[in-house]
Amino acid sequence: MSSSHITDALVTTGELSELFADTSAIQAMLDVEAALARAESTLGIVPRPAAMAITKAAIATEFDAAALAREARDAGTIAIPLVKALTERVRAIDPAAAGFVHWGATSQDIVDTALVILIDRAVDLIGRDHAGLATSLRALSDRHKDDVMIGRTVLQPAAPTTFGLKVAGWYAAVQRGWARVDTRRREAVVLQFGGAAGTLAALEANGAQVAERLGRELGIRCPAAPWHAYHDNLAALVAACGIYAGSLAKVARDVSLLMQFEVGEAREEGGGSSAMPQKQNPTGCAVTLAAAARLPGLTAAAIASLVQEHERSVGGWLTAWPTMADALQATGAAAAAMRGVASGLIVDPARMRANLDATNGAVYAERATMLAARTLGRDTAHRLVKEALRSGQAGQRLSAIVRATPALADAISVADLETLDDPAAYLGVAETLRQRLLTGSH
Amino acid sequence: MSSSHITDALVTTGELSELFADTSAIQAMLDVEAALARAESTLGIVPRPAAMAITKAAIATEFDAAALAREARDAGTIAIPLVKALTERVRAIDPAAAGFVHWGATSQDIVDTALVILIDRAVDLIGRDHAGLATSLRALSDRHKDDVMIGRTVLQPAAPTTFGLKVAGWYAAVQRGWARVDTRRREAVVLQFGGAAGTLAALEANGAQVAERLGRELGIRCPAAPWHAYHDNLAALVAACGIYAGSLAKVARDVSLLMQFEVGEAREEGGGSSAMPQKQNPTGCAVTLAAAARLPGLTAAAIASLVQEHERSVGGWLTAWPTMADALQATGAAAAAMRGVASGLIVDPARMRANLDATNGAVYAERATMLAARTLGRDTAHRLVKEALRSGQAGQRLSAIVRATPALADAISVADLETLDDPAAYLGVAETLRQRLLTGSH
Amino acid sequence: MSSSHITDALVTTGELSELFADTSAIQAMLDVEAALARAESTLGIVPRPAAMAITKAAIATEFDAAALAREARDAGTIAIPLVKALTERVRAIDPAAAGFVHWGATSQDIVDTALVILIDRAVDLIGRDHAGLATSLRALSDRHKDDVMIGRTVLQPAAPTTFGLKVAGWYAAVQRGWARVDTRRREAVVLQFGGAAGTLAALEANGAQVAERLGRELGIRCPAAPWHAYHDNLAALVAACGIYAGSLAKVARDVSLLMQFEVGEAREEGGGSSAMPQKQNPTGCAVTLAAAARLPGLTAAAIASLVQEHERSVGGWLTAWPTMADALQATGAAAAAMRGVASGLIVDPARMRANLDATNGAVYAERATMLAARTLGRDTAHRLVKEALRSGQAGQRLSAIVRATPALADAISVADLETLDDPAAYLGVAETLRQRLLTGSH
Amino acid sequence: MSSSHITDALVTTGELSELFADTSAIQAMLDVEAALARAESTLGIVPRPAAMAITKAAIATEFDAAALAREARDAGTIAIPLVKALTERVRAIDPAAAGFVHWGATSQDIVDTALVILIDRAVDLIGRDHAGLATSLRALSDRHKDDVMIGRTVLQPAAPTTFGLKVAGWYAAVQRGWARVDTRRREAVVLQFGGAAGTLAALEANGAQVAERLGRELGIRCPAAPWHAYHDNLAALVAACGIYAGSLAKVARDVSLLMQFEVGEAREEGGGSSAMPQKQNPTGCAVTLAAAARLPGLTAAAIASLVQEHERSVGGWLTAWPTMADALQATGAAAAAMRGVASGLIVDPARMRANLDATNGAVYAERATMLAARTLGRDTAHRLVKEALRSGQAGQRLSAIVRATPALADAISVADLETLDDPAAYLGVAETLRQRLLTGSH
Repeated sequence: MSSSHITDALVTTGELSELFADTSAIQAMLDVEAALARAESTLGIVPRPAAMAITKAAIATEFDAAALAREARDAGTIAIPLVKALTERVRAIDPAAAGFVHWGATSQDIVDTALVILIDRAVDLIGRDHAGLATSLRALSDRHKDDVMIGRTVLQPAAPTTFGLKVAGWYAAVQRGWARVDTRRREAVVLQFGGAAGTLAALEANGAQVAERLGRELGIRCPAAPWHAYHDNLAALVAACGIYAGSLAKVARDVSLLMQFEVGEAREEGGGSSAMPQKQNPTGCAVTLAAAARLPGLTAAAIASLVQEHERSVGGWLTAWPTMADALQATGAAAAAMRGVASGLIVDPARMRANLDATNGAVYAERATMLAARTLGRDTAHRLVKEALRSGQAGQRLSAIVRATPALADAISVADLETLDDPAAYLGVAETLRQRLLTGSH
Repeated sequence: MSSSHITDALVTTGELSELFADTSAIQAMLDVEAALARAESTLGIVPRPAAMAITKAAIATEFDAAALAREARDAGTIAIPLVKALTERVRAIDPAAAGFVHWGATSQDIVDTALVILIDRAVDLIGRDHAGLATSLRALSDRHKDDVMIGRTVLQPAAPTTFGLKVAGWYAAVQRGWARVDTRRREAVVLQFGGAAGTLAALEANGAQVAERLGRELGIRCPAAPWHAYHDNLAALVAACGIYAGSLAKVARDVSLLMQFEVGEAREEGGGSSAMPQKQNPTGCAVTLAAAARLPGLTAAAIASLVQEHERSVGGWLTAWPTMADALQATGAAAAAMRGVASGLIVDPARMRANLDATNGAVYAERATMLAARTLGRDTAHRLVKEALRSGQAGQRLSAIVRATPALADAISVADLETLDDPAAYLGVAETLRQRLLTGSH
Repeated sequence: MSSSHITDALVTTGELSELFADTSAIQAMLDVEAALARAESTLGIVPRPAAMAITKAAIATEFDAAALAREARDAGTIAIPLVKALTERVRAIDPAAAGFVHWGATSQDIVDTALVILIDRAVDLIGRDHAGLATSLRALSDRHKDDVMIGRTVLQPAAPTTFGLKVAGWYAAVQRGWARVDTRRREAVVLQFGGAAGTLAALEANGAQVAERLGRELGIRCPAAPWHAYHDNLAALVAACGIYAGSLAKVARDVSLLMQFEVGEAREEGGGSSAMPQKQNPTGCAVTLAAAARLPGLTAAAIASLVQEHERSVGGWLTAWPTMADALQATGAAAAAMRGVASGLIVDPARMRANLDATNGAVYAERATMLAARTLGRDTAHRLVKEALRSGQAGQRLSAIVRATPALADAISVADLETLDDPAAYLGVAETLRQRLLTGSH
Repeated sequence: MSSSHITDALVTTGELSELFADTSAIQAMLDVEAALARAESTLGIVPRPAAMAITKAAIATEFDAAALAREARDAGTIAIPLVKALTERVRAIDPAAAGFVHWGATSQDIVDTALVILIDRAVDLIGRDHAGLATSLRALSDRHKDDVMIGRTVLQPAAPTTFGLKVAGWYAAVQRGWARVDTRRREAVVLQFGGAAGTLAALEANGAQVAERLGRELGIRCPAAPWHAYHDNLAALVAACGIYAGSLAKVARDVSLLMQFEVGEAREEGGGSSAMPQKQNPTGCAVTLAAAARLPGLTAAAIASLVQEHERSVGGWLTAWPTMADALQATGAAAAAMRGVASGLIVDPARMRANLDATNGAVYAERATMLAARTLGRDTAHRLVKEALRSGQAGQRLSAIVRATPALADAISVADLETLDDPAAYLGVAETLRQRLLTGSH
């Protein structure tokens, strides 16, 4: 039997791969069929023994996934061959029950409800990795709240910051991201049950009641109406995954940059190389960036698929399974990888400080400007510091340059000049912001 | 002076085009600079006369947009030439004030905050069209709650539905969509103010207070921390616009299909043709579909741009302006067009009924199946009806075919056979679902 | 072991699914390792017996795909665990040979070259379906070259055309599309072989020669230089697949529209419904539209992944496998489905003609305009015909309306008025264009 | 009148912005109308004086762009109000000529042909920047062919390379990219001329001839048939732009990484900061990365828009203008920015060498492995070097570590050990590859 672990290895996790694999997917669809029969039996629509026989027959491992997939390509949906195969299996158990399989449902009811069941479980699985990641980041931020480092804008030294604040930014972003995923999941995980044209006419006046009971059997919410042609909640979930994965990838990008040999401020435990013995690679970051790179395109696909015709579209709804499966697995691969990166991150505060010092004070140029600006005005001070830096000798410290520039030296107090190169003196409200980011306050 | 109405005509509205045009965009940035000076003056950081001079100088029409744009390309941001130009204008008014322009801010603070100001106004503008659209759809659904029509799945007749239910589905989708846009807007419209490296160090201990006051001056919320490298709330808003526009486009697709000459069930007032006098085109639908088609790609761009380096990325944040401006304008063009389509929609219930009848009862095949299934079982009934339909003569009505098939005729009561072709008898819970969709209940 | 036929059933074919499945993927990588050893043995770098042992050990079915995938997630590439496992298997055959496995190569050399081998085979497989599709379309166009039908613009009747011309348009588009895929494939299918940093330094002066021999062993071209950080040829192939699939989807859209009950001009043999016995669905079109819907996002991902760092990126190159595998499988699913649709398409020329007649001549309004324009000018004629159509009674034919409008009746010759409603008289150069499209001339 | 330089400043150039601005766009459409009249006059269809009057009236600056855009939103195309306005202007010049405006054409003929005219010019404009960029890169590669530096994979030191080879990789990628753009442009720049339904019926038997003459008048090729519903050549051009821009962005990413303070191996002249006087930012790289970031989404939009209905789609073709305009302008902005970066790049070979040395020879670990592998086998040598590196003291050079490890020291000749740290001894075929990349040979 063909499987495809190799191609997808880096864009899923073991658990998520199993979740969207054949056995699990077929079982989810069979669970919906069985729950439907039971729901209808409680309302007297389907005889109780028939519901029991259908439930008994609904064992995924008894079905031939490859054959179902083959027939699905002709039928345009997996539900048609699955219902046929289930009916035959039910008939073998109880001939009278075979006539009650799929009572009042349409293919999409089964397929979409099974999908939301898998989605729900997938988000739970990813949530565990997210929780571990968030805990690690929080601890990391607290641990390094006083460790100063270069704040880098446009990949150039800007002004000092703390590693604690940097990590708090990561933490807040992934927390916001996860909150979106979790909320969108709650909105998206609702029953799909509308019958042929979305009116549940096959169940006559009982449609709404059957839907309620079916939802209860499956433990998922029954929405205002079926959503055969409306996949907006699914698209919103994919977008939320995309944004969450994007924030994970931002962290991965930062870590891989900090881990550069020339920077050396932090590194993940990482992986090796098949060619080079010395290599310690940002493997977790690479997996995260690769997985996250799938999400923008998947989100585009999910949104484009909203333009569906009438009561059920030609093709539009068929894209939901691969799109959701890919999006959740890629998101999960990124979350798992970043959890590992965060929990094992090796931080080098001494190198951070050394890199800061190596700028010869250039990161305090704004400080010098603002100190001088009190008397000179910001525009003049900015110009003077810029000119002074240009005319300064290579390797000369900013404080020396300022002292050698009368207009600036006169404008800045001696006390301020003393501490001009002290990063701790130029952190502004970094610690306040860090605490706010960690508590989500404000 | 170059303008580009022609290229963008169909992917914006007049108002939104003005909103993102130069004068408005520059004014928004100047408003931030002026508000900053005033906020700082209340805290004694900037002298009050300087704040007044800066406010006085902050008049967009006095600036040369084309020149600023040209310089922006060299500077990598519009803020640098704008601050320079503003400083010169302030100097002309009050030389002493020039030194207080842009005090403690960084380019991105000004640019991003101006952007969220424009976003806020854009969502308000789109909201007006949305409200009109929603009102029209609601009335349309009520007006046609009893008008039966073919429910179409995979572009084939499935079973009867009502136009009222169909429109209620549209209504609920655009309402959900708009709720997402509006909520994401509230999350995204927050102050950007962090100074050079996001610590507000230039303002020493006053950073958090200045930020609060600045937010109050501008009437926008101050978040936990600056978000220079975190555009996730913006990306979430673009995605929400994408999903909303996708739902608008679903309505447009449906209307354009109903408006086909061969279907003729509804039509928009529409536009004509430069070549053909007879043409009445689904122009509003076309504009909607064209505008909405931009959103998937823009959403992908917004999500991809989240992978930003350190405290400010190389290029990442520069994409926000064109992406947000394009996304909001396209969404607005779609909302305006669909408002027009919905308010002027001409519905032909008689044609709906005629099309239903023209199926010769094929749309009741599921009903015949379910009626016969009570005694024959669903699987046998499905097979028998399918065979009967195949062997029936062209043009023969389903009821006649059923009557001519003993196994089916015996299984269905005479009373049910009488009403087999009555659409009103096979609407299930259509009206219940319609009411739920309109009230958002459940 | 987990497989995922169900999720992907509608976005691949059986053959393509096998091609990208584990056994095939691992074999491709092993083939590269074995070919490398043999290439190096011909140059005296690796002993001949070692090359033979490596070749002998390179049997995919002897490897544990799931275990390799698991280890790949830690290593950041499948190559590291694969090389390790291969080395152990070689050692079991010939201990002295184990030391020559992967000589001079880097992980990406193996993975990327294996990928292009699979790509090459995938394009061959898709090509067979394309050839069948093209043949069917060509025959279809010839068969219906004289069958007139409504030409529809913006989903409204415009002027007559022939089904032969319409199909010729489909044919030319998929032929252009396939030519792009095939050309881009030839450009993309080149050896990847650069060693650790792309200089082949591990092979000293022999690097270029080994590369040549390796290419010859594998039957693939050796490019100017390794392309570790340059996936532009792959991205171009994905884009070509996207455009080809987009053109297949255009055909699918057209067929599904022609197949509407209310239009009924053509239909695919199609599939059924799990709920409704009467349904004959455009299943092949639905599969095509669903599969093609994946391509825009995959193309976006492929292009976004070009921004790779230095000599090998962090994550960027890892996206190539899933992106290429998904893109080719989805394209193949669409090609296979449309081949089926085209070969079995049932066309109803009588209905085409009937629909044309049902417009009451509105499709000849442009003709009336142009006839009258000769004396009245196009602007006046356009206005008069438009007014006449508006004042005409419902159901009245255009020719009658024109006759009843003196200004128009006077401007058009009696002979022209006689044939005003004759579609054959208003086909312009349809047949010329049809022939050009089929021959690709001009 | 509103213009939008500010929003788009960083995603266009001055020239491209003018090209797609109103005057230029309207003039292109008027040029098509005028050429049509002249082409038809040579065939006796339109009187020569009428053609002259139409040509005379076709002056863009005489038209009100804002009003046309407003009316376009109602009409669903700019062509309808434009033809109306042109007709009125012609009437003022020569009343008899007014009746010959737009003879035999449909709106899309004018709009699409005007678009390809602008596309052609845009590619020419971008081509100039590309040529400058290519020249600079070539010279840069030659100049630094012997300057060794760290080859970096996964952002970690791998093995030595030369800056010359690195730049040759950039050069070859942008050359391949540009060749694609230029070829796709030649395929896409073809006349659109099909009349109402694509049969040119309004021109009776003269359609093909008029098309030929019109093409000749405009200097653009006449294709096999009109392509109203087939925008595949446009999509292919957008994709080519995307891939080219992606390669430009790869260069920008590399330069911005080399320009990091901690790396310091190359820097662009760059821009400053509004807050920090010391900043020298990779501004050109930032503009490039921002502009290129638009292309994946635009390509997705272009490909998604291929699914067009029948002879002209509802909305599909309307997306072409903004998509093409955005894609070309963003590509042009990236090309212009990178031309500037390349021509002014300041390279520091001494720093490159110093960074290489600072690795303490770790970049030669593969070399040590391969040297030892000759006697030990690759697997054993790899393991031994890895263990030795781990047990080595911080700051110890690789050669010292190897000497201190008997198993390795014995396996490597004294002569090889002497040059173990010499980058020039471990460049493999770098220079051969560099020359091949520059000449495009192989």
